[in-house]
Amino acid sequence: MTGAGTNHSLTPITGGPQVILVEPQMGENIGMAARAMANFGLSDMRIVNPRDGWPNERAVITAANAAHVLERATVYPDLLSAVADLNAVYATTARERGQMKRVLGADEAVTQIHGRIQGAEKVGILFGRERTGLDNDEVALADAIITFPVDPANASLNLAQAVLLVGYEWFKQAHGQLPFNPEERSPPAKREAVVSFFTWLEDELDTCGFFPAPEKKPAMIRNLRDILLRLSMTEQDVKTLRGATSILRRGPVPPVKKDDPLTKGE
Amino acid sequence: MTGAGTNHSLTPITGGPQVILVEPQMGENIGMAARAMANFGLSDMRIVNPRDGWPNERAVITAANAAHVLERATVYPDLLSAVADLNAVYATTARERGQMKRVLGADEAVTQIHGRIQGAEKVGILFGRERTGLDNDEVALADAIITFPVDPANASLNLAQAVLLVGYEWFKQAHGQLPFNPEERSPPAKREAVVSFFTWLEDELDTCGFFPAPEKKPAMIRNLRDILLRLSMTEQDVKTLRGATSILRRGPVPPVKKDDPLTKGE
Repeated sequence: MTGAGTNHSLTPITGGPQVILVEPQMGENIGMAARAMANFGLSDMRIVNPRDGWPNERAVITAANAAHVLERATVYPDLLSAVADLNAVYATTARERGQMKRVLGADEAVTQIHGRIQGAEKVGILFGRERTGLDNDEVALADAIITFPVDPANASLNLAQAVLLVGYEWFKQAHGQLPFNPEERSPPAKREAVVSFFTWLEDELDTCGFFPAPEKKPAMIRNLRDILLRLSMTEQDVKTLRGATSILRRGPVPPVKKDDPLTKGE
Repeated sequence: MTGAGTNHSLTPITGGPQVILVEPQMGENIGMAARAMANFGLSDMRIVNPRDGWPNERAVITAANAAHVLERATVYPDLLSAVADLNAVYATTARERGQMKRVLGADEAVTQIHGRIQGAEKVGILFGRERTGLDNDEVALADAIITFPVDPANASLNLAQAVLLVGYEWFKQAHGQLPFNPEERSPPAKREAVVSFFTWLEDELDTCGFFPAPEKKPAMIRNLRDILLRLSMTEQDVKTLRGATSILRRGPVPPVKKDDPLTKGE
C-alpha cells in the first residue's frame, strides 16, 4: 500500500465523532492517530492533558499529510471538560471493566454513532493512554464500551490501530464508497451475447473435430458452457475471448514476402 | 488500548488466508504486520524476496508477542512460487490499476475468502512493497483486487494498517465474538418488574406531592415512564434504581446515640 492513491488536490472530508485522546503519552502516537483519522474522513480530535504538552513537534512530523487534523485539535485539562458539550460518549477498552455497561463491537457502535450524528447529536469516542488505557472512572463517564473482536491470546492494539479500526467502520457506514470505482469495468454481458459466443465457438470446435462422436457432443457442450459461465463475463470479456479464440482458429498469417508489390511503400 | 486484555496462557488462533508480503523493505513493517495478524487469528505469512534477507532481527523485535507468526513464516524467491499452491489470490491496492478486475472492499472480499476456505480452498492475499505497492504484473496474478474505503484526499495506508484491516474483517467473519462477553450483564428486565417499579415510584412521588394537580398526573406519569424506559433496564438496573429512590424517599437515618443501650457492644 502506498500514498500513490492519494489525490492531494482534494479537500479532506470532515465531520464524524470527536476522537478524544485521554492523556496520550507519545507525540508519534498522536500523529499516527491523526493520520488514521484523515484516512477515514474524521476531522475532530480532542486531546486531554497530553503528557508532553501541546503543540507537539513529533506529532506534527508523524501526522504528515494529516496536519489539518492536528491544527483543528483542541486541548482540555481534564476529561470532564472534554466531554461537557457532547450528547453521547463511547469508551474504547481492550478488557472487561466490571461495569454494567453495554459492550459493542466497533461496527455496531458506529451504526449508533452515525444515527446520533445524523440526528444532530454530538458524539465523542474515548481512547486511553498507551500503557494503561482508560481508568474505571473515565469509562464510567461513557454511555457504552467499544471493543474489538480479537484473538484473546493477542488482544493488544495500539492507540493508532484502535483509532484506525473505528475510523474504518465510520467511513464504511458514513461515506461507503471505495476510493476507485469498480463500475469502470465493462458492463456485465447480456446472456444473448454470451450464448452467441458459445454457439460460434461450438460450431468452430465441431468444424475442427473437437467432438469425438455425435452422441457425446451435448454433454461436452454443457460442460464447456459450465466452465465459461463461471467467468461471469463482462461485454469486454466476451469480445476479448471471441477475438482470441477466432485468432486461434485462423492460425498464423503467412509471412508477407518483402518484394510483394502490394505491400511496398506501406 | 493496552496489552492488559491479552491472556498469555491461551494458545493463539491459527488458520485463515495466507498473508503474502511482496518484497517488504523494513523489518519493522514485517513485525507490525505479524502483530496485526496475531491480533486477528491469522497465522500464515509468506514473504517474497525480503529486501534485507531472512531471518530479520528488527522484524522479531517488533513482532513481540506475535513471534509465532514469524517462526512459521515461509520465504519465497518470487511471487509465482509463493502463490503456486493456492486456489485463489487477492491483491490489495490503494489505486486504480487499469485492469478489468473486480474491485472489492475488505468486508466483501473476506466474505468470499471465508467461503473458499470453508470449502477447503487455499487462499492468499498480496500486500505490496511499502513505497511502491504491487506492480501491474503482480496484480494481474490475482483473481480480484481488495481496496479500502478511504478519503481519497488521504488514501495512504501503510503495510501493517492494510494487514490490520483485512485481519479485522477476517476475525469478525470467521470468529466473530468480542474478547469479553457483553452477556455477563444482568438479563434485560421483564416488563412486569419495570412497571412494578414505576407504580411504586409514582405512588411515592404522589405521597411527596410531586404532582401539582390531579388532572396533570397522567401526562406527567407518561412523560416520566418515557424517560425511564429509554434506559432499556436490566434486572439489576431496576433493583439499583428502586434501591436508590427508596433510600432517597426515606432520607437520612437519624444518628445512633453512642450510649444507646440497644447498640452497645455491637
